[in-house]
Amino acid sequence: MKLLTETLSLIGNLDEKAMNDAQLRLDSLMKPPGSLGRLEEIAKKLAGITGRIDNSFSKKVIIVMAADNGVVEEGVTSFPSAITAVVTGFMPRGVTGVGVLARLVGAELRIVDIGVAGDLKEPAIIDRKIMPGTHNMTRGPAMSREQAVRAIEAGIEVTDTAIAQGADLIGTGEMGIGNTTTSSAILHVYAEDSLELIVGRGAGLSDEGLMKKREIIRRSVEVNKPLGDDPLDVLSKVGGLDIAGLAGTFLAAASRRIPVIIDGFISGAAALIALKLKPEARNFMFCSHVSAEPGARKLIAMIGLKPMLDMDMRLGEGTGCALAMPLMEGATRIIREMATLADAGC
Amino acid sequence: MKLLTETLSLIGNLDEKAMNDAQLRLDSLMKPPGSLGRLEEIAKKLAGITGRIDNSFSKKVIIVMAADNGVVEEGVTSFPSAITAVVTGFMPRGVTGVGVLARLVGAELRIVDIGVAGDLKEPAIIDRKIMPGTHNMTRGPAMSREQAVRAIEAGIEVTDTAIAQGADLIGTGEMGIGNTTTSSAILHVYAEDSLELIVGRGAGLSDEGLMKKREIIRRSVEVNKPLGDDPLDVLSKVGGLDIAGLAGTFLAAASRRIPVIIDGFISGAAALIALKLKPEARNFMFCSHVSAEPGARKLIAMIGLKPMLDMDMRLGEGTGCALAMPLMEGATRIIREMATLADAGC
Repeated sequence: MKLLTETLSLIGNLDEKAMNDAQLRLDSLMKPPGSLGRLEEIAKKLAGITGRIDNSFSKKVIIVMAADNGVVEEGVTSFPSAITAVVTGFMPRGVTGVGVLARLVGAELRIVDIGVAGDLKEPAIIDRKIMPGTHNMTRGPAMSREQAVRAIEAGIEVTDTAIAQGADLIGTGEMGIGNTTTSSAILHVYAEDSLELIVGRGAGLSDEGLMKKREIIRRSVEVNKPLGDDPLDVLSKVGGLDIAGLAGTFLAAASRRIPVIIDGFISGAAALIALKLKPEARNFMFCSHVSAEPGARKLIAMIGLKPMLDMDMRLGEGTGCALAMPLMEGATRIIREMATLADAGC
Repeated sequence: MKLLTETLSLIGNLDEKAMNDAQLRLDSLMKPPGSLGRLEEIAKKLAGITGRIDNSFSKKVIIVMAADNGVVEEGVTSFPSAITAVVTGFMPRGVTGVGVLARLVGAELRIVDIGVAGDLKEPAIIDRKIMPGTHNMTRGPAMSREQAVRAIEAGIEVTDTAIAQGADLIGTGEMGIGNTTTSSAILHVYAEDSLELIVGRGAGLSDEGLMKKREIIRRSVEVNKPLGDDPLDVLSKVGGLDIAGLAGTFLAAASRRIPVIIDGFISGAAALIALKLKPEARNFMFCSHVSAEPGARKLIAMIGLKPMLDMDMRLGEGTGCALAMPLMEGATRIIREMATLADAGC
C-alpha cells in the first residue's frame, strides 16, 4: 500500500504557463487558429505535462497486462480461459494484433503475466503473477483487497521501470478471456445505465450468451455489493488483475508526468479506477479510440476525454494505442516544425 | 475530353474473389472475427482493388491542388486571396501542415498550381495553371465547361505520372482561399438540406460573415442554375479549379486501381463530383477523417464511406490523409503478419 500511496501523492496538475505558451505558438502557426483540432489540443496538453512546448517521443512502450478471470467458469465468454495463456505466449513474437501494429509504429511491448491461469515459460514475459486468475465473482470477491493493491503496485513497478529506462510515451493493453465481463461490472457500479446498454458481446457471444453475461454481472454486483466510493473495493470484488495492473500503469505514468494512452473498454475501466483513486490522473491520459463494445462511449464520457480514432475495433491488446501513437507524434511535430503566419508576412 | 472519357471507361469493379480470400484470411487470424473493425474492412477492400490479399505501400504520395476562387471578392473569407499563393509557395519546403505530417508518415508531396491567382516561382511546384483563379460565381459561371474539363484532365495527368513513377497509395489535398464556399455550393446542389446546415465558418468567419457566405452561395446557385444531373455543369458553374483537379486525381487513381484517400470537406466535394461522373470510383476511395466543417458529415454520408479519424480538423491541405496513411498500412500489416488461430491450436 505504501507504493500506491506514494504514487498517488505525486500526481499533480498540468503546467498552465507551458500550456499558454503552447497555445500562443499554435495560434502563430501558418493555419487558421484551431484548424488542426485535436492535434492542437494534444500538443497543448503535452506541454502541460512536460512543461515544454517542444516535445518528442524517443521511446514508446505499450504495457500489456495478461490475466484470467474466475467468472469465465460461468460460461460468459465465447473462448475458453486457456486462450489467455496461448495468445499471451505468442505476444513476445510480435505476431498478435498489438505486436504487428506496435512494430509498424516503432513501439516496444512489455508483456506482463499479472495473473494468467496457465504457466508461461517465455522469458520475454515479465512474471508478476499475483494469483493464477481471480476467483469466480458470482460467489464472492474476485480477489482480496490486499491482492488488488499488490496488482496495482505491480503495474506501478513495471511502468516505473519502463520510464526509468527511457519510456516517454506509454500505451496500455491487456489480454484476458472474460475481461469485458469484469469491465462491464465496474462500469455498472459507476454508471446509472441499465445492463442492457453497457454489456456487449465481447469476443462474439450469441444472444443467449449475452443475456447470461448480463445476468452474471447483475448477480456479481448483488452478491458482492461493491462500494462505489471505495475504488479498491470495486476493483477487488468485481474487477480483474489485468485491470488492477493497468490502473497501476495509469497512476505510475501520471506520477512521473509521462503521457499515457487509454486503449479500449478494459483499459478504459482501468483508467476509471485510476481516476476514482486520483482524479488528477486525467491530466496525463489520452484516449486512442472508441471501442465497438457498447459501454465504451459511456465509459469514455465518464472519463471525460475524447477519442481520436473511430475504427469499430474491439480486440484490445493495446491495438488502439499503437494506432494512436503516430497521431500523438503528429501533434508534437506541428508545434515544432510548422512555419508561422509571420513567416508568411501575415 | 478524350482523356476524361478514357479514364472513366477504365474504372471498374472490386475483385470479389480476392475480397473473399481476404475475408477468409482475416477470419483465420488470432483474434475474434471482425474484432479489428475498420482495419479489416480496409484490408479486404485493398484486396478487392489490387486482386491480392498481400498488399504493401512502397510509395505514398499526397497530391495538393492549389487554386484561387473569384467569389472571394464578395468577402466570404477570413483571409485574403493572396494567402493562397503565399501558403502554396511554402509547401515545397515541408513547413505547412501537410508538409510536416507527410514527412512524419513518409509520404511525398506533389504540389500543383492549377489556378493560383499569383505567380509561383518555386520550381518544385507543378505548373498546370488553367487560369489565374476562377470568375466570381455570383455573376456567372466560375469557369467554362471546357476549362473544368481541362482542370480535371490536368489532375488525371499529374496523378497518372505519380502512379507511373510508383505511387501505390494516393492522398488528396488542396489550398485555396474561398474553397469551403465552392464546396458548400456543390453540396447544396446535391443535398436537400438547408444552407444553415451545410455552410460553415471555413477558416474562421464571424457570425455576420457566415450569414453573408450563405447568401452568396444561395445567390451563386440561383444565378447559375447548375444542373445536378450534369456534374460538369455543377463543377464549372459553382466549383473551383482545385476541386476539378482533385476530381481528376480520384478518377485517375480509380482507373489505375490505386487506393486514394479523401481528406476533408473540399477533397470530399471533389470525390462527390468524381462519383457523379462514375459511381464505381467509390471502389477505390477511402475516407480519412470527418472535418469539423458542418457539411462534412453530410458529404461523407452522401459519398457512402466511413471516416477513420475524428480529430475536429479543418485545415485541409491533405493533413487528414497523411494521418490516415499509417492506419491504411496497419490494415496491410495485420493480414500479412498476424499469426492464425490454427497456430494457437484453436
